[in-house]
Amino acid sequence: MKSSTTDTTTLEPSSSVPAVETQEGSLPQASMPAIRTGRPRVVIVGAGFGGLNAARALAKADVDVLLLDHNNYHGFWPLLYQVATAGLEKEAIAYPVRAILRRQSNADFRMAHVESVDLDKRLVLTGTGSQPIPYDYLILAAGSADNYFGNNALARNTLGLKDLSDAETLRNHVLGAFERAAAEPDPETRRSLLTFVIIGGGPTGVEMAGALSELFRHVLRKDYPTLDIGQTSILLLEASDRILAAFPESLQRAAKRKLIRMGVQIKLGMAVESVEDGTVSLKDGSQIHAGTVVWAAGVRSSMLADTLGAEQARNARVKILPTLNLAQHPEVFVVGDMAYLEGYKGKDAYPMVAQVAIQQGKRAARNIISHIAGRSLASFRYFDYGTMATIGRSSAIFDAFGIHLSGRLAWLGWLFIHIIYLIGFRNRVIVLFNWAVNYFTYERGVRLITGGK
Amino acid sequence: MKSSTTDTTTLEPSSSVPAVETQEGSLPQASMPAIRTGRPRVVIVGAGFGGLNAARALAKADVDVLLLDHNNYHGFWPLLYQVATAGLEKEAIAYPVRAILRRQSNADFRMAHVESVDLDKRLVLTGTGSQPIPYDYLILAAGSADNYFGNNALARNTLGLKDLSDAETLRNHVLGAFERAAAEPDPETRRSLLTFVIIGGGPTGVEMAGALSELFRHVLRKDYPTLDIGQTSILLLEASDRILAAFPESLQRAAKRKLIRMGVQIKLGMAVESVEDGTVSLKDGSQIHAGTVVWAAGVRSSMLADTLGAEQARNARVKILPTLNLAQHPEVFVVGDMAYLEGYKGKDAYPMVAQVAIQQGKRAARNIISHIAGRSLASFRYFDYGTMATIGRSSAIFDAFGIHLSGRLAWLGWLFIHIIYLIGFRNRVIVLFNWAVNYFTYERGVRLITGGK
Repeated sequence: MKSSTTDTTTLEPSSSVPAVETQEGSLPQASMPAIRTGRPRVVIVGAGFGGLNAARALAKADVDVLLLDHNNYHGFWPLLYQVATAGLEKEAIAYPVRAILRRQSNADFRMAHVESVDLDKRLVLTGTGSQPIPYDYLILAAGSADNYFGNNALARNTLGLKDLSDAETLRNHVLGAFERAAAEPDPETRRSLLTFVIIGGGPTGVEMAGALSELFRHVLRKDYPTLDIGQTSILLLEASDRILAAFPESLQRAAKRKLIRMGVQIKLGMAVESVEDGTVSLKDGSQIHAGTVVWAAGVRSSMLADTLGAEQARNARVKILPTLNLAQHPEVFVVGDMAYLEGYKGKDAYPMVAQVAIQQGKRAARNIISHIAGRSLASFRYFDYGTMATIGRSSAIFDAFGIHLSGRLAWLGWLFIHIIYLIGFRNRVIVLFNWAVNYFTYERGVRLITGGK
Repeated sequence: MKSSTTDTTTLEPSSSVPAVETQEGSLPQASMPAIRTGRPRVVIVGAGFGGLNAARALAKADVDVLLLDHNNYHGFWPLLYQVATAGLEKEAIAYPVRAILRRQSNADFRMAHVESVDLDKRLVLTGTGSQPIPYDYLILAAGSADNYFGNNALARNTLGLKDLSDAETLRNHVLGAFERAAAEPDPETRRSLLTFVIIGGGPTGVEMAGALSELFRHVLRKDYPTLDIGQTSILLLEASDRILAAFPESLQRAAKRKLIRMGVQIKLGMAVESVEDGTVSLKDGSQIHAGTVVWAAGVRSSMLADTLGAEQARNARVKILPTLNLAQHPEVFVVGDMAYLEGYKGKDAYPMVAQVAIQQGKRAARNIISHIAGRSLASFRYFDYGTMATIGRSSAIFDAFGIHLSGRLAWLGWLFIHIIYLIGFRNRVIVLFNWAVNYFTYERGVRLITGGK
């Protein structure tokens, strides 16, 4: 079981892409403070892709690693939408951090909610009653949160999709809507219960829309013979004029065609004004009555970023040097979704995706090793493995190495990559098994309404 | 996937045990009211072993069946303690009711919480805002609830194990206790965090104690290298002078020996006075400081029993005729944990176990079919397949057909029977796979602290 955890580094890029020592790297704007005493202590906040890869990259370093997370598991968020649509149990995409670190003798884990960082005293604060945690080096990899752009009513009245609880809540809500609709005599109320609005046409929104359509058409249609499945609507609202803006235009078109064939209504140029009491009000004045409204329109840096007093850029992400550390506190590294660094495809900011977090986590760890050894730090270099999104059964889009693929081959590539990156033998088998059952029987065993009494 | 659901009737007893038409059966004390109109409507409350088997036994009858449950799934509670001890994901022991009933054209399901029954008007009441549900025949199979014998503080300060939420809460609590202990500097507090008290030495308490011991000794010992696993204690408190009172004495002794070898401290004759703020006070005046207190000391009939106005016996179970219906309302059948009927091994009441519920559910259904056909009702006859409990790895006790088994063979029998009775191909494979991983690697993948943010 343990050996499988190393597979996450199978596609290790650094062997093929040599790190380059750059000018910025060798001259941080402030000098690093001295190590307090004994072995340097590296504290890592967050056990996601960035933090976990940083911890593992420090396995052979002469440091003490302390990894902190408010969960005791690493969540494989790329498959979260499948938990929300009854395709996978949540336990299949979560893996205990302590199991991952068991054989790494220099690493310890603590389950803690990091409230803030005292950058000057080099202390991580984890809330009342707990001792502050001192560090010599700090890697902040706390990920992202839903971005409601300051609109608290949006946060209250929509369902997010950021963690296991969100996914289970969303699954319960969707299945509960069908249960209520089946017992509802009024046709207007029933129609509104069976209207599902997804706000945001990025990969999360598209994957969610496709998975909901399959759940309704293949599974719930048979579960609820008294409901007319033609009464259900899935609306994908996007404020801009295109879905999947990060993908090439040919793949956008392919995804759009596929979604429309699956019965998803794509509404472009539809900015949401408010969501109140089951009614979505759009900026053009029109309204949609929907029992379920999913928020997939934006993410921002983890709230921890706001407590640092460091400079923040778009989506509240923390501005970092090309060596991934803070200009004023070079012993503090920020990686992944929390970090803002330009240089992607020329001048864009690196996107909030798993590959950036993985590669930045490793680079931060190596830069700490370099600094301890008295070597200069290297700038982050990104190896782009491409991006992909799945739309439904035998259908995905795949954009990598100049190759634009859509359809079954892209879907098989998507399956393969996701199984490779999933941690743990048990989880891989359970995910593969669920997919196989799903594929061959059109069944989804996890359509359970859980929680509550 | 669908065909497997019929396997729950594999061990169908009625073919080998002919139903006997008895005196009581042919002469119910009150006569049944006439069918209102059209096809008779059978309402079944509860989708557990009793209700589900009743519904399926009505598959070919000329009736409309409406099955009600407050969950949308059938829970396989015999494996609930494995969910609570991180051995199985909760989704593996739950199966959607609608999937089970899909091919039964005369059956419908509604997710609803039944609050009470108006026996005179023949209406099932499911709470404010919902239409009362009329019935011609009613089968009450709402199962059981934890019995705290009127002590509300016990209910508040202990952890129960009655449904999926309970099991997930208990798992989170146990794993959380280790996380807190790992960060706790005070040795007294740490020792109390690592003390686990189970109140009740019946099958649930014994299985829970064994599973916790294995979780601590095989898994958490490696997860928490800084904790001394010798500091953990598992105490099994039993008020009477023996554990597993329903089993033969030789098997009680075998179970006791095994538990002691696994490090479980068995305290007999220990009645609990109160549980407050992490302290268990016993009737003999002594106290135990424990971070986790599990209540496995008693169950009672579902609270629904108290709303009927029918005569209740021990554990609030509803007194029924040998034909399984109420003397005053012969159109109302009560089966399983809710029902009180003497005649088990001579004069005892039938125990609150799955086999009684399964066989009573089928008998109630057949008696309704008989009544519609103008035939007399048959008394319940129990075919005893025996009882079993698992204690740990390769260890169980098994008492059936006069054979008393303990050890590996009993354990294999236990595995086999539980897989047979589990509904659904997906769940069977996932449970078997988890058991195999657990057996060969001593790993438990589901040691996740979920819920909450």
